[in-house]
Amino acid sequence: MSHNLDDTIFLLSRTPATLNTLLRDLPDTWTLRNEGENTWSAYDVVGHLVHGERTDWIPRVRCILKHGEARAFEPFDRFAQVRESQGKSLAQLLDEFAGLRSKNLDELRALNLRPQELERRGLHPSLGAVTMSELLATWAAHDLTHLHQISRLMAHQYQEIVGPWTRYLGVLRCAGHSSTS
Amino acid sequence: MSHNLDDTIFLLSRTPATLNTLLRDLPDTWTLRNEGENTWSAYDVVGHLVHGERTDWIPRVRCILKHGEARAFEPFDRFAQVRESQGKSLAQLLDEFAGLRSKNLDELRALNLRPQELERRGLHPSLGAVTMSELLATWAAHDLTHLHQISRLMAHQYQEIVGPWTRYLGVLRCAGHSSTS
Repeated sequence: MSHNLDDTIFLLSRTPATLNTLLRDLPDTWTLRNEGENTWSAYDVVGHLVHGERTDWIPRVRCILKHGEARAFEPFDRFAQVRESQGKSLAQLLDEFAGLRSKNLDELRALNLRPQELERRGLHPSLGAVTMSELLATWAAHDLTHLHQISRLMAHQYQEIVGPWTRYLGVLRCAGHSSTS
Repeated sequence: MSHNLDDTIFLLSRTPATLNTLLRDLPDTWTLRNEGENTWSAYDVVGHLVHGERTDWIPRVRCILKHGEARAFEPFDRFAQVRESQGKSLAQLLDEFAGLRSKNLDELRALNLRPQELERRGLHPSLGAVTMSELLATWAAHDLTHLHQISRLMAHQYQEIVGPWTRYLGVLRCAGHSSTS
């Protein structure tokens, strides 16, 4: 399958509103609980997505355009959101995510990337050479990996109270294989 | 953890709008493709959720209230949506899901179930005795198992084009353990 950038932008444009619809003003049972020690709540995941909008995706697009493979991307700090989210409500983080994503997609559209730019390579600090196309497809798939994580960690809160149905609910057998970029 | 019915109703009330925000008018890449033979697309999952609203959850609530353990629930037909969705667009299915869910939650609220009714038992055709509380918690967790499935099957469409990032994206390693109730 080849990469259709419009499909990617469509998906990227939906995620903030999807998470807002799912999470805003939900009881804390759903938004603040996690899956145990060293795991994230839905609140933590939204903070992580906000941090990614600030430091990961578009800065890496710019890095590829400016430096190609001559300079590696800044490594992504997967724990920065703990500091940056401090004192903020989930509603504030959802608003921040929506605002940053919208601004970032405006910048991406304005670049009007042509096929040869999508094939341009950059340097990932641990993965090595990656293309602009792979970076942008990963941005969308990264949204989906975190929607997958949020649905799993929310379901986790109900793993006892569903009783015998637990064996039919695949989400309760998901091994929590989410990582980030 | 004990079951707080308000938490369950909050979650159940969000799912139709969440799926609508995520899926309506998205390109077919995201909504009509599946994970391979005998797997579902997002379109199929929404059809399955519509069918559940018609035949599964509230009919089983009524069955417990009326018959207790004296009569088993009707088995749920996991393939009925293939027939019932025929000729319908995804937008139509999303509207149908929203309308049925809203009506079903009105009926649930009107029942005003008390603690002793939440402990009342019914008979599942393969799981045996289950309580009203377990049935209602499963209704919510079933929404989440399908949100988990949808995020996984959408990410599957990008498994090649993310290139080396595939190893960081947990959703691409999810073994597709979803089943239904």
